[in-house]
Amino acid sequence: MSETVLTSASKEVVIGFERPFVIIGERINPTGRKQLAAEMAAGNFDTVVADAIAQVEAGAQMLDVNAGIPLADEPAILAQTIQLVQSVTDVPLCIDSSVVAALESGLSVYEGKALVNSVTGEDEQMERVLPLVARHGAAVVAISNDETGISEDPDVRFEVARKIVSRAHDHGIPRQDVVVDPLVMPIGAVGSAGRQVFRLVRRLREELGVNTTCGASNISFGLPNRPGLNAAFLPMAIASGMTSAITSPLHEEMRKAVWAADVLMGNDEHCAAWIARHGDTPDGPQGGRRGGREGRRKAAAA
Amino acid sequence: MSETVLTSASKEVVIGFERPFVIIGERINPTGRKQLAAEMAAGNFDTVVADAIAQVEAGAQMLDVNAGIPLADEPAILAQTIQLVQSVTDVPLCIDSSVVAALESGLSVYEGKALVNSVTGEDEQMERVLPLVARHGAAVVAISNDETGISEDPDVRFEVARKIVSRAHDHGIPRQDVVVDPLVMPIGAVGSAGRQVFRLVRRLREELGVNTTCGASNISFGLPNRPGLNAAFLPMAIASGMTSAITSPLHEEMRKAVWAADVLMGNDEHCAAWIARHGDTPDGPQGGRRGGREGRRKAAAA
Repeated sequence: MSETVLTSASKEVVIGFERPFVIIGERINPTGRKQLAAEMAAGNFDTVVADAIAQVEAGAQMLDVNAGIPLADEPAILAQTIQLVQSVTDVPLCIDSSVVAALESGLSVYEGKALVNSVTGEDEQMERVLPLVARHGAAVVAISNDETGISEDPDVRFEVARKIVSRAHDHGIPRQDVVVDPLVMPIGAVGSAGRQVFRLVRRLREELGVNTTCGASNISFGLPNRPGLNAAFLPMAIASGMTSAITSPLHEEMRKAVWAADVLMGNDEHCAAWIARHGDTPDGPQGGRRGGREGRRKAAAA
Repeated sequence: MSETVLTSASKEVVIGFERPFVIIGERINPTGRKQLAAEMAAGNFDTVVADAIAQVEAGAQMLDVNAGIPLADEPAILAQTIQLVQSVTDVPLCIDSSVVAALESGLSVYEGKALVNSVTGEDEQMERVLPLVARHGAAVVAISNDETGISEDPDVRFEVARKIVSRAHDHGIPRQDVVVDPLVMPIGAVGSAGRQVFRLVRRLREELGVNTTCGASNISFGLPNRPGLNAAFLPMAIASGMTSAITSPLHEEMRKAVWAADVLMGNDEHCAAWIARHGDTPDGPQGGRRGGREGRRKAAAA
C-alpha cells in the first residue's frame, strides 16, 4: 500500500490507495492563457492569487504551479509564484516545469515537501531531475515516455514507468514518492486511449505498487461536451486504481463525480463527506424502482 | 469474447464486451409503485405503454417487464403486459419474475429471444428455471446468490456464478446466454459494496467470459443525491467490465454517463454517437488548460 505524503508549511496531504482521490488544481498555468502569461511576465499575480483561492475553495487538495512563459525568466517567475501561492493558501504544491533550472529554483523557495512535475524516462532527464528531487526530499511525477516518444502500447509505457521507479530508487527516492502519469491521449484521436489508461493504471497499482496521476482533461480534447466526458473518465480511472489527477476543480460535474467515486471505492468512510456535502436527508424514493429485488436481496443479506 | 444476442420480432440487440453498454429500462415494474400496481391489476395498461415508449425514446435498448402484484394473477398479467409492450415498441424484453409460472407464461407469448430475469444458484430454482430457458432458446440473468444467501465475499459470489454457468451448460444453454448479476448492495450499508462489484465483474469477464448486468440504482439506496452516485457508479462498473444494467434511462445524468463511458471504452466508434448527440462543434478551449504538456505529448506521439 503506497502512500505519497506531500506537505506545505502547515498541511499534509496523502495520495494513497485507500484515501480520497486527490485533485491537484491545474489552473495556475500560463500555457494557452495569453492574458495570464502577460500578467505573470509583468509581475502582476492578481489572477494567480484568485485562481489559487478559487481552486482550494472548490475542493483542490493540492495546486499545480507552472510559469512556462516564452522568453520570460521562468526560474525567477516560478519561485515568485510559489512564494505568493504559499502565502495565500496552505495546500501542498506541485512544482511544474519542463526546465530543470526552474524546478530547482521552485524547490529552493518551497516550504514543505513538494511534488515535482515531472521526470520522464529519458536518461539525461532522469540524471538531472532525480538528484534534485532526492536532495530536496521531494516526491516526483514520472511520465511514462522516453527517448522513443509515447508508445501506444500500454505494456511499453509500463516498462518505462518501472525503469523510472528503479532509477529513482538508485537515487534514494522511495517507490512511494514516485507518482506515475500513465499519459492520457485524446480519445477522439486514439480510440483505445481510455482502455490503455485503465489497463496501465491497474498494472501500475497491482504490479508496481505506485500511486498515479494524470492530466485528466486531455482525454476529451477536440470533442463536444468535454466536461461530460471528463466527469465519466475520472470515476473509470479511479475504479481502475488512479489516485490523483491534475485537473480543474472548478467544473462542478467533474468534482461531484470524484466525490461519488470516493464513496463507491469505500474511501469516504460512512459516506460522511458525501452526506455533509448534500445535506443529511436521504431521498429514498428517487433513482430506483427495483424495490422487489432490492427487498429480496436486502432480506437475504440481513 | 462473449456476445449475448436478444431479439424481438424485428430487432436484435447484442450485449457484449466490445459493444455499447446496454441499458435495460427498469420502469415497468409495479413493485413500490402502488398506483401502477392497481392499474395493472385492473387491466389498465396506460402507464405501462407510456413508460415503455418514454424509456425507448430516452435510449433504453431493452425493457424489463415485471408484473409482481400481491394477490393478482401474475402469470396472466405478465403475459398481457408483454404482448402489449411488444405491440408498441420493438426492443427485446427482459421477462422479470420470481414466480416460475409467470416466467413460463411470459415466455409462451414472447416474440423473439428474451432475457429471462432471473435464476439464482439455488438448486431447486435452477432445476425449474433452466429447462424453461433452454426450451424457449432464451438467455437468462444469473444472480450470484444461493441457499446460503448473498455472501459479502466476492469470491464466494464468483463461485456461485460459475456453478450457474456450469449448470446452464448441462441444460444446453451456452455460456454467452448467461448474463451474471453480481448483486449490487447499498454502499450506505456495506462500505465495500462498490469495490466488491468492480472486482467481481472483472473476474466474471476475465475468468468466466460472461456478460454482466445489475440493478444499478441499488448502490445509492438511502443516500442523498442518488442520481449523482448512480451516474458515477455505472462508468466505474463499465471500466471494470460490466456490459449492461437494469436501470432508468429517464435520468439524464446517468444516461450521459453511460454514453461517455461507451466513448471511453472505445465502444463508440470514432465517437460518432457522442458527436451526433451533442452536435459536431468541438469546444476546444473548454475543460483543459494543460496545453503545455498536451502540446509536448501530442508532438511526441505524432
